Order: sequence, then C-alpha cells, then structure tokens
Amino acid sequence: MTYRAPTRDHAFILRDVLNLETHANLPGFEDAHIDTVEQILEEGGRFCEEVLAPLNTVGDKEGCKWSPDHTVKTPTGFKQALDQMVEAGWPNLMGAPAYGGQGLPAVVATAFQEMISSANMAFGMYPGLTAGAYAAILEGGSDEQKALYLPKMGSCQWGGTMNLTEPQCGTDLGLLRTKAVPNGDGTYRISGQKIWISAGEHDLTENIVHLVLARIEGAPAGVKGISLFIVPKFIPDANGNPGERNNVFCAGLEEKMGIHGNATCVMSYEEATGWLIGEENSGLKLMFVMMNEARLGVGVQGLAQGEAAYQAAAAFARDRLQGRSLTGPKNPDGPADPILVHPDVRRMLMDARATLEGGRAFMLWTSLHGDLARLSPDEAVREKAHDYMGLLTPVVKAYLTDKGFKIASDAMQVHGGSGFTEHFPASQYLRDSRITLIYEGTNGVQALDLVGRKLAAKGGRAVMSFFAEIDGFVTENASDDAMVPFVHGLKDTKDKLQDATMWLMQNGLANPDNAGAASTDYLHLFGLTALAYMWAKLARAAHARIAAGDTDPFYANKLVTGRYFVERHLPDAASHLAKLKTGATLLMQLPADAF
Amino acid sequence: MTYRAPTRDHAFILRDVLNLETHANLPGFEDAHIDTVEQILEEGGRFCEEVLAPLNTVGDKEGCKWSPDHTVKTPTGFKQALDQMVEAGWPNLMGAPAYGGQGLPAVVATAFQEMISSANMAFGMYPGLTAGAYAAILEGGSDEQKALYLPKMGSCQWGGTMNLTEPQCGTDLGLLRTKAVPNGDGTYRISGQKIWISAGEHDLTENIVHLVLARIEGAPAGVKGISLFIVPKFIPDANGNPGERNNVFCAGLEEKMGIHGNATCVMSYEEATGWLIGEENSGLKLMFVMMNEARLGVGVQGLAQGEAAYQAAAAFARDRLQGRSLTGPKNPDGPADPILVHPDVRRMLMDARATLEGGRAFMLWTSLHGDLARLSPDEAVREKAHDYMGLLTPVVKAYLTDKGFKIASDAMQVHGGSGFTEHFPASQYLRDSRITLIYEGTNGVQALDLVGRKLAAKGGRAVMSFFAEIDGFVTENASDDAMVPFVHGLKDTKDKLQDATMWLMQNGLANPDNAGAASTDYLHLFGLTALAYMWAKLARAAHARIAAGDTDPFYANKLVTGRYFVERHLPDAASHLAKLKTGATLLMQLPADAF
Repeated sequence: MTYRAPTRDHAFILRDVLNLETHANLPGFEDAHIDTVEQILEEGGRFCEEVLAPLNTVGDKEGCKWSPDHTVKTPTGFKQALDQMVEAGWPNLMGAPAYGGQGLPAVVATAFQEMISSANMAFGMYPGLTAGAYAAILEGGSDEQKALYLPKMGSCQWGGTMNLTEPQCGTDLGLLRTKAVPNGDGTYRISGQKIWISAGEHDLTENIVHLVLARIEGAPAGVKGISLFIVPKFIPDANGNPGERNNVFCAGLEEKMGIHGNATCVMSYEEATGWLIGEENSGLKLMFVMMNEARLGVGVQGLAQGEAAYQAAAAFARDRLQGRSLTGPKNPDGPADPILVHPDVRRMLMDARATLEGGRAFMLWTSLHGDLARLSPDEAVREKAHDYMGLLTPVVKAYLTDKGFKIASDAMQVHGGSGFTEHFPASQYLRDSRITLIYEGTNGVQALDLVGRKLAAKGGRAVMSFFAEIDGFVTENASDDAMVPFVHGLKDTKDKLQDATMWLMQNGLANPDNAGAASTDYLHLFGLTALAYMWAKLARAAHARIAAGDTDPFYANKLVTGRYFVERHLPDAASHLAKLKTGATLLMQLPADAF
Repeated sequence: MTYRAPTRDHAFILRDVLNLETHANLPGFEDAHIDTVEQILEEGGRFCEEVLAPLNTVGDKEGCKWSPDHTVKTPTGFKQALDQMVEAGWPNLMGAPAYGGQGLPAVVATAFQEMISSANMAFGMYPGLTAGAYAAILEGGSDEQKALYLPKMGSCQWGGTMNLTEPQCGTDLGLLRTKAVPNGDGTYRISGQKIWISAGEHDLTENIVHLVLARIEGAPAGVKGISLFIVPKFIPDANGNPGERNNVFCAGLEEKMGIHGNATCVMSYEEATGWLIGEENSGLKLMFVMMNEARLGVGVQGLAQGEAAYQAAAAFARDRLQGRSLTGPKNPDGPADPILVHPDVRRMLMDARATLEGGRAFMLWTSLHGDLARLSPDEAVREKAHDYMGLLTPVVKAYLTDKGFKIASDAMQVHGGSGFTEHFPASQYLRDSRITLIYEGTNGVQALDLVGRKLAAKGGRAVMSFFAEIDGFVTENASDDAMVPFVHGLKDTKDKLQDATMWLMQNGLANPDNAGAASTDYLHLFGLTALAYMWAKLARAAHARIAAGDTDPFYANKLVTGRYFVERHLPDAASHLAKLKTGATLLMQLPADAF
C-alpha cells in the first residue's frame, strides 16, 4: 500500500476556493505565494510518502519499548525520520520568525499536518505535541522562557508534551491533585502522577519539555487553583543546553488498541523542578491555547486517517477480482471483475470521498480563519475569525473524527476478510483512528462545548455570522443554474440548523439537560451544514474552471462527488433535527440502577 | 467487569411476546415448558457468567499458538471449559434426538448462543462452527455418515469446520480450485489450500470434521461444479473412534485484529481422504444450509457483543465520577457525579438498549420461525415460516452486526480514554465484534442477497406476508391509546419500507445497479421496521403485565426504552428512504482510475 499525498486537492482548495492570493496583505502570506506553497506541499508530500508512510506498519508492529531505567525506545526508523524532518526544517513551517520559524500561514501547515497524519499518525504526534507546547509558551511564556525554549522546540530538536490527566481526573480538571511547592527562588517542586501522556518519554530528541498542570500549595479548590508549569526532562544549563536530569520519569507505557508507535506514558513527578508559565492559578486558560490547537489537530488526524484508509480501500477495490458486475462483465477476459464494479462497494468509497473532500475544504477554511484571527490588520475581520475559531473548533474535532473512523471502518469492509487480518493496512487505520474520537476531549465533550458554550458566547454572535455568510452565498449564487442542487441543499440544511439553534435557545435554557441531549445530533447537523457550504464553494470553483475551458477531469469528478454529497449525505440532516428535538425527558427517565 | 446473562429479558420475550406455550403442539416444544426453558437458560447463563466470561480476556491476550508440527494450542482454560460444556450436555440442546440430541427448540438454543457469544465470542465459535457442520451432515449426509458423525459432533466431543475460502476465492465461490480425485472406492483425494478457516485446528476435541468445498476432476466450471466433502482430521476406525491421521494440516494462523482466542487457520489439503456428502456438483446447496445457520449465528454474535459492551459501559458510567450534572450535583457528597448523569452518555447507553432489546426480540422471533418451518404440522405455517427465514436471515445478520459494532464503539466512547487502553474490556469488544460485519458474507453481500434474491423470490410472497402481518397488528392495536406511539411509529416506518420496495421493483429491474446502490439503505430500513414491530409487540406485552397489576419496574422501563426507540431511532427511516431513491447514476459515474 502506497500513500499518495493529495496535493492536487490541497492546491485546488488553497488556490481556487480559499483564494490564498487575496490574503497577500497578511504578514507571512506575502512569502506564501501560491506557487511557493504548492511547491512546499509537494515536497512535504513526497517526504510523507517516502519517509513516513513506510514506517507506519513498523510502528504498529514494534510499538514502543519501556525499560526499567525509565527510557523508552521508539520503533525502528522513527529517530532517523525525525532527524530528517528537523534537518529539512519542516516542523518550523509556521513557527514564529522571531524564534527561527518560517512564519508561514497556519493553513499551509495544516495541509502538511494532514499528510503527516495520513502517512504515520503515531509518528506525527511527536512533532504535533511539540507544536502544541510551543504554542502555549509562545502565548504565555516570559521573554526569557521563549528565548530559551522556542527555537529548539520549533525545530523539533527538543520535544514537548501536555500533562493534564491523572487517574481520578480526566475531563474534569477540577479534580487535579498534582502539587507545586515554591522553592523560594522562582522555581517550584512538582509532585504527582500523570497518565496517558503522549510522547511523554522517547529517544527522538535530546530534551523533552513537559507542560504540566499542577496546584500550587494553598491554591483554591477546583479549576480556579490550577497553574501551568514548564518541567524540562533535562534542565537547560547556562548555555541553553540540556543539563541536569530533572526528577520526572516515565513509570510505564499504556497498552492500547492503536497508535502503538507513539509512547503513551505514565509520568511520575517527584519534586521535579518546574517553572511557572503565565500567572498563578490561570493555568487552565493557557492550557486551552494548547488544547484548541490540539483539538484542530485531532480533527485533522481524523480526516487524515480516513484519507489513508480510503486510499487503501480504493486500491484494493481496483485490484481484487471477485464476482461480476450486475450489468454484465466489465473485465470479460479476467476470471472476475474488480470489486469496484459493485454499487455497494462504490457507495462506501463515494461516501468516503464526499466527506474527505468536503472535510478537507472545511479544515483548511477553518485554519485560514486562525490566520485571519491572528494576523488580519482589520479588527472586524479578526473578530469574526476569532468567533469562528471558537465555534468551529469542536465541529472540526468531533465531526471529522467521527467520520474519519466511519470511513476507516468502511475501508475495512471494502477489504472483506483481508481487512480483518493484519496483513493489510485496514486494521491499523481502524485502530489508530479510534483514539481521535476520544482524546483532547471526547466528541461528547466537544458537542457540549458547542451547544453549552460556543453557541451562546457573545449573544450568539458567531453562529449568527455563520448563518449570514451562508445566506449571502445562497443569494449570490441562486440565479446560477449550474449551482442549483448545491445552493438548494445548502439552504435546506442551513434552515434545519437554524431551526435546531432556535429550539436549543428555547429549550436548553428551560432545562440544560435538553441541550446535553441534543448536543451530538446538533454537532452533526452543524458538520453537515459546514460541508454543504464547502461543497457549494468547491462546486462554484470547479464550474469556474470548466467555464474557463479547463478540461482536467478533476473538475468534473469534483462536481459528481459534490452532487453525491448533496443527494446521499444531506438526508441525514432531517434525521438529526427530529432526534434532537425529542429532548431529554425519555433519555433521563430510567433510574441509575436500571443500567 | 462481570457479564450478567440477560435471562430476565429472554424469559419476557419467550413467555410474553412469543408465547412459547402456544406452540406446545410442535415436536420438541412439548418438553419445552416455559418454566423448564427459564431454568435451562438460567443455568446456562450462570455457566457463561462463571466459566466462559472470565476466559474472554485470557483468550484475547494469549491468542492461539501454532507450532511447526502443525498443532495449535488454544488459550489457557479453553479446553477445560469445553470439557465442562460437553459434560453438562449444553452443545446438544437442539441436537436431533435420533442422534443423542435434546431436540429443544432453536429459539431456546439461540438465547443460549447469545449468552455464550457475549461471554466469550472466540470460544463460542468452536461449538458454533461444529453446530453448522452438524446441520449440513444432518441435512445432506447418508444414514451411515449421520450415525458416524452426528452423535460425537452433537456433543462437541468432535469439532467441525466449514472450508470455503481460498486466496483467490472469497465471496465468489465460482473461482474455487481445490480438487477432488476419485479413489475408485467411494472416497476422494482432496488437494488444495483453504484460508480463514475458523477453528480449523485446535487442541479442544479428539477429532475435527472438516466440511470442504472442492471440484471433482472434470466437473463443470463455476459454481455448478462444486461438491461438498467430509474430511476428518483423524479417519474414524471400524469402531467409529479417531484412527489414521488424514493428510490435512494447519499451515499457519492468521494474525488478525480480534477474536484472538479462535484459531483462524490456513488449511493445507494434500491428497487428504474425503467422503462426498450429498450429490456430486451440488455442494453449494448444502453449504448454504450451513451458511444460513451460520449467518443467523453471526447476527446473534453481533447482538451479543453489543450486549456485553453495553454492560461494560453501563457499569463504567455508574462508577466513574467526573464532572457535575447540568442540572446540579447528583452526588453532592462525592468529588463529582457519576458520568451516567450526562445526557450524552445516556444517549449512547439508551441507543444501545433500544437496539439490543428490540434486536433480541427480533432474533428470537426469527429463530422461532426456524422452528415453525421445520416442525409445524400446518403446511401454510411451515411455508410462511420458511419464507420468513429466507427474507429475514440477511437482515438479522447485517443489521444486528452493524448495530452491534456501533454499540461496541459507543461503549468505548463512554469509557473515554480508559476505553482505548487494554486494561478495560471495551477494546476487545470493538475488535472482536468487527469481524461479524465481514464473515459468512459481508454485510454488503447480505444486502444484495436481500434485494436481489429474497425480495423477488416467489413473486415477493415473503415480503408481502411480512407487510400483511404488520398491517394486521396495526389494525388490531390502533384503538389502544397506550399503543398509539408504537403503532404510529410502526405504521409510518412500514409505509416507508413498502415505498422503498415499490421503488426497487420499478427501478431495480430497469437497471440492476439501482438495486445494488439501494441495498444497504434498504436493509437498514428493513431492520428499523422489524425492530419497530418488535418494540410494538414488547410494548403490548409490557402494557398487559402492567394492566394485570404487575409492579415490577422492568415493564415500565421497557416502555420508556421502546418509546426512546420510536423517537430516536425511527427518524433514520426517512433518511434511508431518501438515500436509496437516489439510485445508481452518480454512484457509478466516476471512472475507475479516479479512485
């Protein structure tokens, strides 16, 4: 199985749908001419295809090995691959120029992340977690901390981690117990146990910078008493090089269903030396900088795993000869037809394409809003983009991962019995992708974040601009005959989402359990609306190319897949609306002991 | 995690919904007084809880071990468990009395199979495959073959297997190459390689009876030249005891995602001695006796894995303290509330219950039709029951396994991060249940069997009786106020299924690809209709109990779950209908090289 980077699709979205050129006024974008961007992504794609993808099975089969001396050995080839990445400067694509980064737009980095996560998700988590920790230090660190850590983390010479979870404390961070005791010299002694720490220990980088949530002695109970600390594995010496070994150790690895190539660590802090980052007791806010970054990244992983699984299934369906087409042999000289001739096999592949191609546009469009929120000189643009990032992050995370896993499962189904064996890649994609529905906040937590927090924020300003933007698009394109099915599907789905939003406003306030009961269906209805909007934009761009005389079949195929999305995916919108309006009554009725 | 056998639910369905007592006129049923049946299922349930369930994790972690001497070692404890089963006489519950079986109804055996497959699916496949091979010999074997094999296979003293698949030949059995050459003495030399043979080799029984599809020298090409052979591992001697070792060997085990406790074997036949069973070149018909039996069994496995996964998730949700209820603390003295207070956690658990409880009734109701088809003295009853078995088998297989896997995935989701680790049972349920969507004909093959063969058979007689039966139920219960939501939901869903059936008749003939394109959505719409019917029957029975003064909360809870099914699951019917009516055009439009 060979992974092929979808650079053609990236280029179309960046050039024709997001019109990257029109944003050349933003800092960082002036260097990101679309031709340069395409070239970067093509080179990056090749790196993913040639270096990372071949290591994916290796990582799954070998896994990571913990030794009693607390070291962790990563799978064969991971170290060399990261070294190559560091050397090529890939990790620093969107790093801050002040600290050695290339300052490219996030939207470009996101496309690259997708390819890394398709080729080798477990590997990609090492630089991925590092980027999250980098973002938190960039946001909240002192100038000294930034100067000390960012250059080395930006290049991935040093790794980074996020330490939140403890055995009794997962989603509910208020239950956190890890202690921080001031040493009087500005440092703290950190003690406690953290679990499920991805990339917590490994042999890939010369240092690992742990960002650790802990409670300073005497701090208020609950989430208001949580601070964030930098706890490096090796304390940097006066020259900024790894010095004294800190008292943080990996006490063991988690045995898990997938992502075997990534070390999921139990981390033990025994009076480890830590440095406060940001203000006392405001660690959670800073952690959410990392968390939001990470949530988008997980949505990208979901899509990326779906893409890789789809590619494997498509290749299998083209090659595997079994049975004959219902409409007569298509490969009459062979012993049987390729299974791609069977409509139900096509259904699974087309379902995948419809979600992946629409989802890719959604992911990049969202990412572009991240750039606009950070960089636009226009306050109104920044504000709207910032609103969107809040609103869309849980949708990107949960919708794309739910669907990515569904695609991975369908991809296994296309393989038939072969898919269940470990000789084919389908099982690994299914097992690896499953974590994306869980970590960085389960998809249920995302749905609750959406309906409980993001919708209501600032009087619903974000969702109202989203609706207004779609209304504008509908009006603008209503008279274009070629756009009729797309515009009609979009308007209908958006109306249902608006209806659901009204229902939530009326019923969620009366009984918060109604909001909780509606949350997942609401999020999926939102995802469908977002993808319907993306497909309408993709279709408009494809039509424009065709109208301009471009005969590349890429554009005609795009329109077929888009219409398939409208006809075969949008019918779920009514079902989500009907379900979410049933409210919480029946859901909450059975007594606990009936379960 | 402790598995609890759902004997309460079984008893309710058998007694109040299927009215087992009214079938006392059938042979076998006269001994199956409902009190006796309940007692059998309770004892059987205890065996599953106490003996089989504790071995489930053992089987997953240890797996089966192949040695170069072609032997396979099953996980610790499996041999003792099977010995206990044989001694207690469990495998022979529904065996033919002429060959030492207890001749109990299939519906009772199905309830027991469910419990075995919940407690330890990988283990249950050893007796399960044996039962399939038993059924084929009972149907097609000579008197001598029956006398020789059935007593020992019925008791599970000997095991049995099905050998269909070859590397180039999965769903498309016409491609089969295994050869059979007559020895002139009535025996044949069988040569070829079979793959994915469940329970193909193991250390559990003193002999293994392989049923093998092969092509007699000079037989016609394709499926018309396939014969079925009995190839015992040890050739029975004159006294019927295992004698000379036959030339069939396990050449290796498949490495696979789940059911590690079951040996999935590559089987090598090198001029092994085989006996023809049934007529030459009519092996496929006989294999379908096993296959239909096996397909129902796989549907049962899907439900069973869903049940076990649900139970694990419910236990986790009752115990795990994290966060607070949206409507104020429910466990104010504890550090947090159990996560069962969160509506979205409830949603996943209630979704599971709605499918499992309705699906259990569907499975047992179908199984009862198997009994009626075999045993009823009334020809019209036999005919209708036989029609139903044909029509419903693909629905039981595919609907219950699709949903079982969904439930297993939701059960993992309820566990959060814990679910992804192998310390909790969620991962094994997800991995084990996934095969049920694939083997014995993928769910896509089931859907095609339903729309391509079963609907049209005998002028659509089966589906028309199904509709008439539901219409009768609706008319009969329309004036019962308590039944309004159930009857309304049932009628509405059945109307949609009828609409879809009409669409298929009109459009499937015009273009067979339309039938293929609609098949999976049609099958799911069928499954929803069947479960809506079952829930209406369950509700009527629960209402009757309540009306009779029974205050067991079991009945009130049943009504809540049933109404939840109507409100939260039936909205999918419209979505399936809309999708299936889109036809094949867009689905088949992209050229093969676009994938």
